[in-house]
Amino acid sequence: MSVNKMWGGRFSQQPAKITQRINTSIDFDKRLYKQDIAVSIAHTKMLAQQKIIGDQDKNALLQGLQTIENEIATGIFPFSSDLEDIHMNIEARLKDIVGPAGDKLHTARSRNDQVATDMRLWIRESIEHISACLRELITALIDQAQTHSHVVMPGYTHLQIAQPVTFGHHLLAYVEMFGRDRSRFKDCHQRLNECPLGAAALAGTGFIIDRHATAKYLGFQKPTANSMDSVASRDFILEFLAHASICGIHLSRLAEDIILWSSPSFNFIALSDDLSTGSSIMPQKKNPDVAELVRAKPGRIIAALNSLLIVMKGLPMTYGKDLQEDKEQTFDASDSLVLILTATTEMIKKIKPNATAMRDALKEGFPTATDLADYLVRTFHIAFRKAHDITGSLVAMAEKKGLDLAQLSLKDMQSVEPRLTKEVYTVLSVDASVRSRTSFGGTSPENVRNACNDANKRFLKNL
Amino acid sequence: MSVNKMWGGRFSQQPAKITQRINTSIDFDKRLYKQDIAVSIAHTKMLAQQKIIGDQDKNALLQGLQTIENEIATGIFPFSSDLEDIHMNIEARLKDIVGPAGDKLHTARSRNDQVATDMRLWIRESIEHISACLRELITALIDQAQTHSHVVMPGYTHLQIAQPVTFGHHLLAYVEMFGRDRSRFKDCHQRLNECPLGAAALAGTGFIIDRHATAKYLGFQKPTANSMDSVASRDFILEFLAHASICGIHLSRLAEDIILWSSPSFNFIALSDDLSTGSSIMPQKKNPDVAELVRAKPGRIIAALNSLLIVMKGLPMTYGKDLQEDKEQTFDASDSLVLILTATTEMIKKIKPNATAMRDALKEGFPTATDLADYLVRTFHIAFRKAHDITGSLVAMAEKKGLDLAQLSLKDMQSVEPRLTKEVYTVLSVDASVRSRTSFGGTSPENVRNACNDANKRFLKNL
Amino acid sequence: MSVNKMWGGRFSQQPAKITQRINTSIDFDKRLYKQDIAVSIAHTKMLAQQKIIGDQDKNALLQGLQTIENEIATGIFPFSSDLEDIHMNIEARLKDIVGPAGDKLHTARSRNDQVATDMRLWIRESIEHISACLRELITALIDQAQTHSHVVMPGYTHLQIAQPVTFGHHLLAYVEMFGRDRSRFKDCHQRLNECPLGAAALAGTGFIIDRHATAKYLGFQKPTANSMDSVASRDFILEFLAHASICGIHLSRLAEDIILWSSPSFNFIALSDDLSTGSSIMPQKKNPDVAELVRAKPGRIIAALNSLLIVMKGLPMTYGKDLQEDKEQTFDASDSLVLILTATTEMIKKIKPNATAMRDALKEGFPTATDLADYLVRTFHIAFRKAHDITGSLVAMAEKKGLDLAQLSLKDMQSVEPRLTKEVYTVLSVDASVRSRTSFGGTSPENVRNACNDANKRFLKNL
Amino acid sequence: MSVNKMWGGRFSQQPAKITQRINTSIDFDKRLYKQDIAVSIAHTKMLAQQKIIGDQDKNALLQGLQTIENEIATGIFPFSSDLEDIHMNIEARLKDIVGPAGDKLHTARSRNDQVATDMRLWIRESIEHISACLRELITALIDQAQTHSHVVMPGYTHLQIAQPVTFGHHLLAYVEMFGRDRSRFKDCHQRLNECPLGAAALAGTGFIIDRHATAKYLGFQKPTANSMDSVASRDFILEFLAHASICGIHLSRLAEDIILWSSPSFNFIALSDDLSTGSSIMPQKKNPDVAELVRAKPGRIIAALNSLLIVMKGLPMTYGKDLQEDKEQTFDASDSLVLILTATTEMIKKIKPNATAMRDALKEGFPTATDLADYLVRTFHIAFRKAHDITGSLVAMAEKKGLDLAQLSLKDMQSVEPRLTKEVYTVLSVDASVRSRTSFGGTSPENVRNACNDANKRFLKNL
Repeated sequence: MSVNKMWGGRFSQQPAKITQRINTSIDFDKRLYKQDIAVSIAHTKMLAQQKIIGDQDKNALLQGLQTIENEIATGIFPFSSDLEDIHMNIEARLKDIVGPAGDKLHTARSRNDQVATDMRLWIRESIEHISACLRELITALIDQAQTHSHVVMPGYTHLQIAQPVTFGHHLLAYVEMFGRDRSRFKDCHQRLNECPLGAAALAGTGFIIDRHATAKYLGFQKPTANSMDSVASRDFILEFLAHASICGIHLSRLAEDIILWSSPSFNFIALSDDLSTGSSIMPQKKNPDVAELVRAKPGRIIAALNSLLIVMKGLPMTYGKDLQEDKEQTFDASDSLVLILTATTEMIKKIKPNATAMRDALKEGFPTATDLADYLVRTFHIAFRKAHDITGSLVAMAEKKGLDLAQLSLKDMQSVEPRLTKEVYTVLSVDASVRSRTSFGGTSPENVRNACNDANKRFLKNL
Repeated sequence: MSVNKMWGGRFSQQPAKITQRINTSIDFDKRLYKQDIAVSIAHTKMLAQQKIIGDQDKNALLQGLQTIENEIATGIFPFSSDLEDIHMNIEARLKDIVGPAGDKLHTARSRNDQVATDMRLWIRESIEHISACLRELITALIDQAQTHSHVVMPGYTHLQIAQPVTFGHHLLAYVEMFGRDRSRFKDCHQRLNECPLGAAALAGTGFIIDRHATAKYLGFQKPTANSMDSVASRDFILEFLAHASICGIHLSRLAEDIILWSSPSFNFIALSDDLSTGSSIMPQKKNPDVAELVRAKPGRIIAALNSLLIVMKGLPMTYGKDLQEDKEQTFDASDSLVLILTATTEMIKKIKPNATAMRDALKEGFPTATDLADYLVRTFHIAFRKAHDITGSLVAMAEKKGLDLAQLSLKDMQSVEPRLTKEVYTVLSVDASVRSRTSFGGTSPENVRNACNDANKRFLKNL
Repeated sequence: MSVNKMWGGRFSQQPAKITQRINTSIDFDKRLYKQDIAVSIAHTKMLAQQKIIGDQDKNALLQGLQTIENEIATGIFPFSSDLEDIHMNIEARLKDIVGPAGDKLHTARSRNDQVATDMRLWIRESIEHISACLRELITALIDQAQTHSHVVMPGYTHLQIAQPVTFGHHLLAYVEMFGRDRSRFKDCHQRLNECPLGAAALAGTGFIIDRHATAKYLGFQKPTANSMDSVASRDFILEFLAHASICGIHLSRLAEDIILWSSPSFNFIALSDDLSTGSSIMPQKKNPDVAELVRAKPGRIIAALNSLLIVMKGLPMTYGKDLQEDKEQTFDASDSLVLILTATTEMIKKIKPNATAMRDALKEGFPTATDLADYLVRTFHIAFRKAHDITGSLVAMAEKKGLDLAQLSLKDMQSVEPRLTKEVYTVLSVDASVRSRTSFGGTSPENVRNACNDANKRFLKNL
Repeated sequence: MSVNKMWGGRFSQQPAKITQRINTSIDFDKRLYKQDIAVSIAHTKMLAQQKIIGDQDKNALLQGLQTIENEIATGIFPFSSDLEDIHMNIEARLKDIVGPAGDKLHTARSRNDQVATDMRLWIRESIEHISACLRELITALIDQAQTHSHVVMPGYTHLQIAQPVTFGHHLLAYVEMFGRDRSRFKDCHQRLNECPLGAAALAGTGFIIDRHATAKYLGFQKPTANSMDSVASRDFILEFLAHASICGIHLSRLAEDIILWSSPSFNFIALSDDLSTGSSIMPQKKNPDVAELVRAKPGRIIAALNSLLIVMKGLPMTYGKDLQEDKEQTFDASDSLVLILTATTEMIKKIKPNATAMRDALKEGFPTATDLADYLVRTFHIAFRKAHDITGSLVAMAEKKGLDLAQLSLKDMQSVEPRLTKEVYTVLSVDASVRSRTSFGGTSPENVRNACNDANKRFLKNL
C-alpha cells in the first residue's frame, strides 16, 4: 500500500499542506465535470471496442460514470480537495462505486490529454452559448433600428457634433460589430474542433486505441495530429479570449454611448427604473450602473487574455503545471461576457429614445455645414477644398453672431459667397441632410430600413 | 485667405506648438503612403466615372499621384510635420503639382474613411507577408523533422523526463501550432476584406458615388455596410494583433526549447557561430541571443494588442483622435513578428541535433516506466492503476540503488511483482518505447514520417 | 587577427545578417550616450586611482571620451550597426582616437553592469524631468482653482448630477492625484539610487576596484550589494513604468472631463482654437484632439509596463538578452508621459470655464436633494434613512410635474411631509448647498481657498 | 412605503433580475466585513461626540455592530444578494437588531466614502501580511545562503555558463530583490494611510463632523484633503497591484531557477517528495508543480493590475460603478501573492543543493576564462581587450580538442601566448576564481558571509 495515495509507489511522503493548497484545482475545475464524464464515456466505449477492456468492465464503468454525473448534478457528490482535481475525484468515486474496474479507466490516457479534451469541449459549448447571446443582441438592435430608422440625432466624431444621423443607423453600426464578433467565434469553434484524447502523456500510447472513434463520439471533426502539440497547446483558449476581448470592446463602446445619452446634459434616452440603481445618500439619484458595469467588465476579460498569454510565454514543451492557470480566468471571462451580453440586450430592448431632445441637440454644432460645402461644389462647380473654406468662414460668422447656419441672412451669406441664393437654405435642414445620405452604407432612413432587412439575413444564421 | 491653412475659414489661430507636437502623425503614418495613394487613385477613377469630376481633372490627379508615389519611393518627397499626416502631405503636394484640380480630390470622402481604408490595405499586405514567412518556417520544420524522424530524445513534462520521443515528432508539434497560426491570419484576412471608402466623415455622402467600384479597384470583396461602423471600428487590427500575439507565444516556446537545448547541461544542439554572440568580458562565451530575443519580443507584440484594447475600451461613437494610436504599435508588432519568424526559420534551418547527448539524457528519469506499466496491464491483465503502483515501487527501488530500470535484476523486480520474467527488459529500451507509440499522432518514427507527408499537404497552401 | 571583430578569438564566423538585424540595439540605445560616457569617465578615474591603469592612459581615455561626447552631441559621430550597441560603438571610436589605451577601458567591468548603470542614470534623470512637469501642472491647477474657487458646477457620480461642487474643488481633486504621483516617483528615485558598476559580468571582479568611488562620482548613494542582482534586475524600470501608468490614468481622467466639458451638450468650457483641430471634410468642426490624445496615450504607457513584466517573468538568473527589451518602450513611455503632462498643463492654463452653462446645468438632476434630506434630519430629528425616503418621494413628485425641487409648492411638499415650512427653500439653492460643505476636504468656496494655500505648501517642493 | 426598498421613494420599479445579477457585489465584498464594521464604529463614535446622534443611539449602534461582527465571524449572518453589498447587508441587519437607531448610522456619509475607507483598511492589512511573508522568505534565503556560502556552482548569463559563483551568493541576489519589494510595499502603506471617511457622496457634508477623529480611530495618519479625490481615486490599489506584480516577477524568476535546477540535466537540487507531485500515467514522475505554479501565478497578479488600469482609464469624475471592479481581482492578487510567497519560503527552507553536481557542471563552459584574461592583464600588462582576444583563442583551441582550459598543455598555451608559465594554472580553478571575487558585492565566500550579516540588519526590520 503506497504512502501517497495520489502518486503511488514512487513517493515516500504525503504532500505538504502548501503543496495541496497551491496545487488543488478541484474548487474550479469541478466545473468541467460534464465534459470530463463525457470524455470518460467515450474513452470507455473505445477501450471496449478495441478489446482493451471487457464488456463487463465497460458496462460497470458507464453505469458508474452516469451515477457520478447524477450525484454531481444533484449536489450530493463528495468532492475532496485531497484528490487534487476533477479527474481524480471522479476516478476515486468510480472505484468506490464499481470496484476494481474503476482502476482500468485510465488505461491508454493521461490527465494531460484528458484535460485538454475537457477544455475544448467546454470552450465549444461556451462559444455556442455566446453565439446565441450575440444573436439575441443583434436581433434587439435590428428591431430598435427598424422602429427608429427615421429618428434624427447628432452623429458625433470627437464627441463634437459632426453630421445628423438616424438613431437606427447608429444602432446598426453595432450590429456590424457584433456580427463580426459572431463570425470570429465561429472560426474559433471550427479550428478547435479536433480531439486530443489519446495523445496520452505526450507521446501517444502503445495500446491499440482508435482515436477517430473517440473523436467521433465527442462530436469532434477528427483527432489532433501530433500528440505533443495536443497536450502542450492552449491557443484555442487564447483565441477564444481574444475574441471575447474584442467583443467586450464593442460592448463597452455601446455602454459608453448609453451612459452619455442618459446623462442629463444629453438626455437622449430615459433609463428604465428597473435597470437603474439609486444612492445610499442622494435621494434623487438614478444611476446607469448596469451600463457602467458593461463598460467596466471587459477589463477583466482582457486581463484573462493577458494573463494566459503571460503564463504561456516561453514555456518549454510540453505540459507544465503552469497550464492549470488556463481555467479560472477563462471561466470568469466567459461568464462575464455572457453577463454583459445579456445586460446589454436587456438595455437595448427597453431603450426609449427621446426624439425631441435628439433633434434639439442638432441646433448646436452646425451639423449641416458639410451639406453646404457639398452644395457649393455641385452648384458652382468649385473644388471641394475651396467650398470647405467658404463654409468655414460662414460657420465662423454664424458662431460670432450666436446663430445657426440656417439663421444667417442671405445677405450675410452673400458677403462671403455672392453667388448664393435662397436655395441654399434647402440643404441646411437636418432632415434634408439625412435624406440625402443615400450612398451605400449611408444614414438615409431608406438605407437604414434596407440595411435592417439585409442584417436579418446576414447575421442571424445558426452558428 | 485663412489664418489656419489646415482647418480653413473657421479657425482664428494657428495650432499651438504642443498641438502640433502631440497631433502630428506624419513621422509614422508616412508608412501608409502606398496604400493612401492607391486609395486616392481608386477614388479619383470613381469620381470621374460618376461624373463628379471631369476627365481632365482625373488625368491630372492620377498623374500627380503617380509622381508623388515616385517621389516618396525615391526619398525626395518634402514631408512636412505642419501638414499633420500622410493624407494632408499628399494632398498639399498634389495641389503643388496639378494646381486647382488637387482641391477636388477630397470630394465625397473624409480622412476618417480614408485612413480606415489605408489601414485595412496595410494589414492585408502584412498578413500576406507573415503568412509567407510562416510557410517558410513550417517548411524548415518539416524538413528537419523528416531528416530526424528517428532520433530519440527525452520528451519532457514539467521539465522532467517523461517518455522518449523523436526529435522529428517534437518539431512537428510546432508545425501544428504554426499551421493554426496561419489559418487564423487567413480568417482575419477574409473578414477585413471590405472597403470603408465612401463612408465619408461618418454618415455617408450625398454625392452619387459608387462604393462597389472603389471596393473592386482596391481588391476588396465589397464595401462595408454601415458608414458609422466603417470609421469607428478597428477590430480588424485587434484581431490581427491577437493572432500575432498567439503566434508570438508559439515562437517564444520554440525559442525556450532552443535555449535549453543549447545550454551545456542539455547540450542537445550546437549553436552555429553565426547565430550566436559573445561577451565583452568573458572570452569563452557563445550566447543564444537570437533565441532569447525571439523569446522576448512577443512581449511587445502582446503589449501592442493590450495597448489598442485599452485605447478603444469605452470610446463613444464614432471616430475619436484616440484611434490614431492604432498605428505605431501595430507597425512595430508586425515588424517584430516578421523579424522573429525569420530568425526562427534561420535557426531551424541550421539546427544540428546532438543525437548522442539526447540519447544519453534518457539514461536519467526512468523514461520507460509507462511502458512497463502498460506491459503489466497487457501481460497480467491487471488494472492500469494497479500497474502504475507496482511500477512506482520499482522506480523507487531503482532510484534508491542508483540504477536505471533496465539495470534492476530480475530478482529485484520479482520482489515487487513475482510474475515478471526477463521478457520485461524488452519494453524498457527507449527505442522499443518509441517504436510502440503508433497510435494516431504518436511519436513512432513511422508515424513521424507519415505526419511529415501529411503536413506538406495540409499546411503549405497559398493564403 | 580574429575573424569576428566583436567577439574575439573564440568565434570562427561573422554574425549572420539576421543576427545583426535582431541583435543590434544601437538605433535606440544611442540615447544612452551621455550616461554611458559618464559611466566610462567614472570608471576610468577609479581605475587610475586604484593603479589598475596609469595616469597617461587615464588622461587619454578621459580626453577621448570627452571628444566622443562632443561628436555625438554635434551629430558627427559615425554610428555603426556592425558594432551592435552604444557601448561597443563608443569603445571602438575611443580606440580610433586614443589608440591602444582604448583597449584598457573595459578592464574590470562588463557591458552587463555598464548598461544597468546607464539605465539607472537615465531613469533618474527622467524622473527629475517628469517631477518638474508634474510641479508645473499642479501649479496650473492650483492657479485655476484659486481663480474659480467659487464657481458652482454639477458634481457628478455615474455621470449623473449628484451635488453642486465648485470648479476649483474639482480641479483640486486632480492636484491630490498628481501630488501622489510625484511622491511615488520620488520613492522610486531614492530606491534606484544605487550603483551596479563593478558587478562586472555577474560575479564581481578580482581587480581591486573601489565601487564606492564610482558610485560617488555618478551621484549614487552607494554601490549595489549583490553582483548577480545588479546585472539581472530591472525592478527599478518596472517601478518607474508602474508610476508612469498610474499618472497616465490620472491624466486620462482629466482629459475625459475636458472632452465632456467641451462637448456641446455640456458646453462647460470653450476650447481655445490653438489647442483644437479641424476636419478635412466638415468645415464647422473644432475638435479636442489634444485632450483625446492625452486620454489615449496612457494605453501605450501601460503597454510598456505590461511588456516588460511579460519579458521578465520567469527569466532565470542572471542577465539574458531578453533584458535588452527594457529600453525602447521605456523611452517611449517616458516621452509619452512628458508629452501628455505638457499638453495637459497647456490645456489647464488656457481653460475658461463657462460659469453660466455650469450653473444652468444644475437645474437638472435635483442636485440639492441631499441637502433637503439632511435638513429633515436636523430639523425634525428623524433618522437619515427616513429623510432619504421622504426626499425620494418629493423628487419623484417633482420629476412627474417636470419641476425642480425648489419649484414645488409648499402645499405639494407638505402632502409628503406636513411639518415642512417655507424655510425648506433656503436649503434648496445650489449656492447654499456649496457654502454648507465645510467639513474638512469639502467643497465650500472657503475650503477651496484654504486648500489652495495648503496645496502650495504640500506639493511644490523640489524632488 | 417605497416600492423599491433599496433606493427609496424615487423609484417606481424593483430592479430587474439582470440588474441584480450584474450589480450585486455581496458575494465578494463580504470580505470587507471587518473593515466595514470598524468604519461604522468609528463613524458612530464621532457622530455621538459631535452630538449628531445621541448616546443611546450610539450605544445601540455599537452593540449592534459588535453583534453583527460576531454573526459573520461565526457564519450565521443571513447574507442577502437582494441587499446588493456588504454595506447594505450590515445596515439592514443593524436595523433588525437595534430598530430605528439603525436608520441613523448613514448620516453624513455615503457608500462612496465608506467603501473607499474599507478598501484602504483592507489593503493596509494585506500589505502588513505580505510584508511579514516577505520577511520570512528573506530569512529563509539568508539562512540557506549562510549555510552554503562556499558551495560553488556555475553562474549563468544567457543560460550559458559564465563564471563560478557560490550558491549562497545566488540566493542573496533574491534577498536584494525581495528587500526592495518590501520597501515598495512600505511606501505604499504610508502613502495610502489617509482616511476618506466624511467625504460623503463627493462634496463633503453640511453636518459638523470631525474627520480627524474618525481618521484617528481607524489608525490613519490624517483625513484625505479633497472630497472628490477621496471617492474617485484608486491609485492606492493600483500601486499595491504594481508592487505585487513586481514581487511576482521576482518569485517567478526564483521558481524558474528551481525548475531548472531540479531538471535531471542540471540535477543541482533534489525536490523533496512532499513538495512534488506525480503523474496519473507515468509512474516514475516527480514534478516540481509547486515551483511551476509559483512561476505561473504572477500572470494573474499582473492581469489584476492590467484590469484595474483598463477599468479606470478615462473615467470622468467622480465615482462610477466601474470602480466596483476594484475588488475581486485585487483580493485574488493578494491571495495569490501570499500563496506563492508561502510556497517559495517552504521550498527554500527545504532546498538541498547537490554540491557535487554543481561543481561537476563547472567542467563545461570554460568558466574561468575571464580569470585567465584578467591574469594576462595583470601579469603582462596588456590591455584587457587584447587579453580577451588571446583567451578567446585558447578557448577555441580547448573546445576543438575537447578539453577544459586547465587541461591544455603549457605548450599548447604558449603557442598562443609564449610568455605563459605554469603559474597560469593557478587562476584556472573554480575555487581560486570564486575566492578572488572580493570586490564589494562580489561572490567570494567571505563576501557572502558578510553580506548575510548585513542583510540581517538591512532587511528584517518591522514594517
